[in-house]
Amino acid sequence: MPTTLKDVALRAGVSIKTVSNVIHGTIHVADEKRERVEAAIKELNYQPNLSARHLRKGRVGVLGLVVPELTNPYFAEVSNTIIAAAACQSYTVLVDTTGGLRENERVVINGWRQQLLDGVILNALALEQEDLHPERVETPIVLLGERFLDVPYDHIIIDNVAAAYEATRHLLSLGRRRIAAIGLRSDLLRQTETSEMRLHGYLSALQEAGIAHDEALIPTTVTPYTRQSGYIAMRQLLENAVSLDAVFCFNDLMALGALRALHEAGLYAPQDVSIVGFDNIEEGCYALPSLTTIAPDKQQIGETAVRFLLGRIEGTRTEPPERVHVPFTLIKRESTMGRATF
Amino acid sequence: MPTTLKDVALRAGVSIKTVSNVIHGTIHVADEKRERVEAAIKELNYQPNLSARHLRKGRVGVLGLVVPELTNPYFAEVSNTIIAAAACQSYTVLVDTTGGLRENERVVINGWRQQLLDGVILNALALEQEDLHPERVETPIVLLGERFLDVPYDHIIIDNVAAAYEATRHLLSLGRRRIAAIGLRSDLLRQTETSEMRLHGYLSALQEAGIAHDEALIPTTVTPYTRQSGYIAMRQLLENAVSLDAVFCFNDLMALGALRALHEAGLYAPQDVSIVGFDNIEEGCYALPSLTTIAPDKQQIGETAVRFLLGRIEGTRTEPPERVHVPFTLIKRESTMGRATF
Repeated sequence: MPTTLKDVALRAGVSIKTVSNVIHGTIHVADEKRERVEAAIKELNYQPNLSARHLRKGRVGVLGLVVPELTNPYFAEVSNTIIAAAACQSYTVLVDTTGGLRENERVVINGWRQQLLDGVILNALALEQEDLHPERVETPIVLLGERFLDVPYDHIIIDNVAAAYEATRHLLSLGRRRIAAIGLRSDLLRQTETSEMRLHGYLSALQEAGIAHDEALIPTTVTPYTRQSGYIAMRQLLENAVSLDAVFCFNDLMALGALRALHEAGLYAPQDVSIVGFDNIEEGCYALPSLTTIAPDKQQIGETAVRFLLGRIEGTRTEPPERVHVPFTLIKRESTMGRATF
Repeated sequence: MPTTLKDVALRAGVSIKTVSNVIHGTIHVADEKRERVEAAIKELNYQPNLSARHLRKGRVGVLGLVVPELTNPYFAEVSNTIIAAAACQSYTVLVDTTGGLRENERVVINGWRQQLLDGVILNALALEQEDLHPERVETPIVLLGERFLDVPYDHIIIDNVAAAYEATRHLLSLGRRRIAAIGLRSDLLRQTETSEMRLHGYLSALQEAGIAHDEALIPTTVTPYTRQSGYIAMRQLLENAVSLDAVFCFNDLMALGALRALHEAGLYAPQDVSIVGFDNIEEGCYALPSLTTIAPDKQQIGETAVRFLLGRIEGTRTEPPERVHVPFTLIKRESTMGRATF
């Protein structure tokens, strides 16, 4: 008979919960207890079988998480919160990437690997309404991100218009008047809703302040949302000698690229140009200067996504699909406030 | 009869290869052709079935990739090269994380989800020889990283001792003599081989230069390899008033944290303290100053791992398991060379 969690707990003289915590690595266990559990696991040659509980219920214990890319730290950080929330419920998360390509997203939304996964969390960028065939889909899906579709799935978002408005208001409150916006695609027919909503919030704040918007302050790039595209867009602004005193970048990576371009031109943030990003990736806390940014509550995004998905999988969530807003905050750092005294 | 790739190609008037490229998103397809393919996919309501080819051969078309964490950009960047290399061969990669925990790694190395995956690429940090039961494992495994085990799997590594030696030699060649090393764990019994090998390369270079090593220059941290641990270790050095003119950090994240701590103390790189990192994550190219670093050839790591794994899965690779060294280079940037004239 295979060794069970209980056998390990008895041998180690700890609770089953403690053994589980050591195995899942989700909660810190004191070194002394941990070592006893590890010794017992070794002595008994215990093989954790995380999926036993699920198999009894006809589930595999695996969730799919599908994001555009892992090299954007925002998606890596959100993935982390999802992996941690799922681990607390003994679910493994397997991550796949789409490159933000419509074709790949279409495969995922229409019942991707249903036999291997209990459910899927998808952050879509490019899906169109006509791509959806919910009648083919047997496993629950939760959507993340700013793609708004008429589809019977729970959907977790933040209010991008309000967030971009608040970022721009912050720059206006500092007396900035020539505020550039970086994040639009040069192919204007292929804007993501993310870009459109952030542009909309930016324009609303300008309008409210009685500032006419100036096309010259809104450069476009071929593939936005990377460090390189922020760098290139900032270089364009500088080469075109566009007068500016602030930049709102539609994500942190572009803001970090723009910072680099400014610095190379002998301009500094915030003295010469104030910069605000979006995402609150960890990199922005350590950047020189540290980056003022919009911080979506990633913890809550991950926990809500997992709670909704598991609720659907386990049948405890029976409400009609909801669109839920997760809060965000503006975090003011050196790129707009200047260097604190350390 | 379901629509096939060929039907789409005929409708769009392009080759099957082009349709495949649009669907897999691995190779750029000119906009005009791409639009024709997308239109044909839509008209024919084509559902890509990536796994058909595999199912015919008793495979599922899915590889598992297991790394310690995705929020370390090094692992995200290596994952990206693996995902791209696998996509070229019509394999999907699902990514799981272990938190670097021995218990989780043990589950993976001993035949994890063999029924769902054709093979696994594992970057292990904590496995011990006694954890291994290769007789239970039915699917091929390829190992990445510096955990050296006597196990019948292909293993892809870089020469960490030589790389750390070269990083330290670079600092010595700039006339630096008080070179700190950041990356050891305070729990000396739980060093990873990565830390040990990088320390060894550092000490060899010092010894060769006739410099006695000074314990005060080797601070330890509780959980190394994060921005925060680099920041804390640098603060410790500064608070202890340790005289130093350079730092070799065992990864880029710690180097970026150390840069921040230096800057807060009014010290600058490279004027006051030169800094070298390890990994060549993209963040280091855009940092201010940009980061001198050891660059493992991530492209080659990903391509070799996938080539070896698919060779085992498809039976074309029959050689005994190999340990293969992938090259690295030292990339000199502003954190040691100073600011270039732009």
